[in-house]
Amino acid sequence: MSMKHLTAKLAQQIDEELMNQAGAFSIDQLMELAGLACAQALARVYDKKRYPNVLVCCGPGNQGALQKLVTGLSAKLTLLEGGDGLVAARHLGMFGYTPTIFMPKPGSKDIYQRLKSQCDNMKIKTIPPSNDTSALRDALSSTNVILDAIFGFSFKGPIRSPFDSALPLLSGSRLPIVSVDIPSGWDVEEGNVEGVGLQPDVLVSLTAPKLGVRSFNGRHFLGGRFIPKTLEEKFELNLPEYPGSDQILELKE
Amino acid sequence: MSMKHLTAKLAQQIDEELMNQAGAFSIDQLMELAGLACAQALARVYDKKRYPNVLVCCGPGNQGALQKLVTGLSAKLTLLEGGDGLVAARHLGMFGYTPTIFMPKPGSKDIYQRLKSQCDNMKIKTIPPSNDTSALRDALSSTNVILDAIFGFSFKGPIRSPFDSALPLLSGSRLPIVSVDIPSGWDVEEGNVEGVGLQPDVLVSLTAPKLGVRSFNGRHFLGGRFIPKTLEEKFELNLPEYPGSDQILELKE
Repeated sequence: MSMKHLTAKLAQQIDEELMNQAGAFSIDQLMELAGLACAQALARVYDKKRYPNVLVCCGPGNQGALQKLVTGLSAKLTLLEGGDGLVAARHLGMFGYTPTIFMPKPGSKDIYQRLKSQCDNMKIKTIPPSNDTSALRDALSSTNVILDAIFGFSFKGPIRSPFDSALPLLSGSRLPIVSVDIPSGWDVEEGNVEGVGLQPDVLVSLTAPKLGVRSFNGRHFLGGRFIPKTLEEKFELNLPEYPGSDQILELKE
Repeated sequence: MSMKHLTAKLAQQIDEELMNQAGAFSIDQLMELAGLACAQALARVYDKKRYPNVLVCCGPGNQGALQKLVTGLSAKLTLLEGGDGLVAARHLGMFGYTPTIFMPKPGSKDIYQRLKSQCDNMKIKTIPPSNDTSALRDALSSTNVILDAIFGFSFKGPIRSPFDSALPLLSGSRLPIVSVDIPSGWDVEEGNVEGVGLQPDVLVSLTAPKLGVRSFNGRHFLGGRFIPKTLEEKFELNLPEYPGSDQILELKE
């Protein structure tokens, strides 16, 4: 039996089960382990000596344009997106990288503020908000690798401002890209059908790959090692076995 | 400059700074990373094929006898103890070990309930509460290695029931023991002065070693890779560098 690729709905359902009364996980726990996995996957591929400067691109969190599109998802769930990036940025800082945060639509909820403060305390720089793309261009000029945590499994196009202008810049930089869960701009189930999505070199799928990345042929990692066996069986995920005590697993063809 | 060994007061102060408004960490985040480090250190030393059955011994949480002794510590801080063990048990389960939880004085706070539910969902067994030590004896007979997360840095003797009868049983089992932060029964600053403490083979010091373990000469790991450089410098901790993206670091003489 091969590993299941998730629809957006199923991905949502799994996150809901993890966080409901039975699953009992807090968003802090899940985000911490997911963000750690993203940072570790990036570190596995891009050595900090050759790739010290990481631009961590974080999505709009649970406010702004995206929020209107995710009716049906609990507010809790939408928090996961964007937050992963902030957690990853902090861990990358701990690993000795120099992350810079691009988060043009910061979330207003308490958890975002806290995750952001944790980065600030590590002296991780954030690109100041701006009406044009000059600050992002400047940051890209000294970036070695991009962590794309902009859109996650709840994304539905079209891409709204300011991400509509940011995505082409990221693509145009020709820098290596590590995407979290779903490359930004891709449809969660259909893939890069609009052709406007990023083309990552590395993908970190959280809990299980989504349907839209079936055709992805770069280096592909699994992260989010927190699915109890009972849940894995209920949803017939057929997850491969993580090695030892690692929090990431590289998927091979 | 060598690494600083912490007094109980300094260890408390560091945790407070991590969790106050400036540090901005939630207890969930810190406990998750600390518990993961404990599980990974155990897995590094004790292979799951030869040592599949882990007895995870958790302290009294923030209630019962201990609570009266920790005046001056915030309720938040005392939560850290015992909780680490539950998080470690869950990760050990994910790694493929068969953990059993011994937690004779379960905490009543919401976070304990949630951490416990997460273990229950993984079908991790808990030794039922009992007025005698027979259940613990039974569990020990099929245990391969003990994770000692009973007392942490806020411990002050004497050892109260039911831990006063549990500790000699754990020692008497002659099973390998991995202790978290401070071996149970040791004075946090003076070490095993009463001679009643456990004699672990492996120690996992969280954030930095405590004064009481200076004489410890087993395998010694550092975990809790979440201290920002600014905090490390403020308290002159002189922490060694963790390798790569690892969450544990083995200390060598």
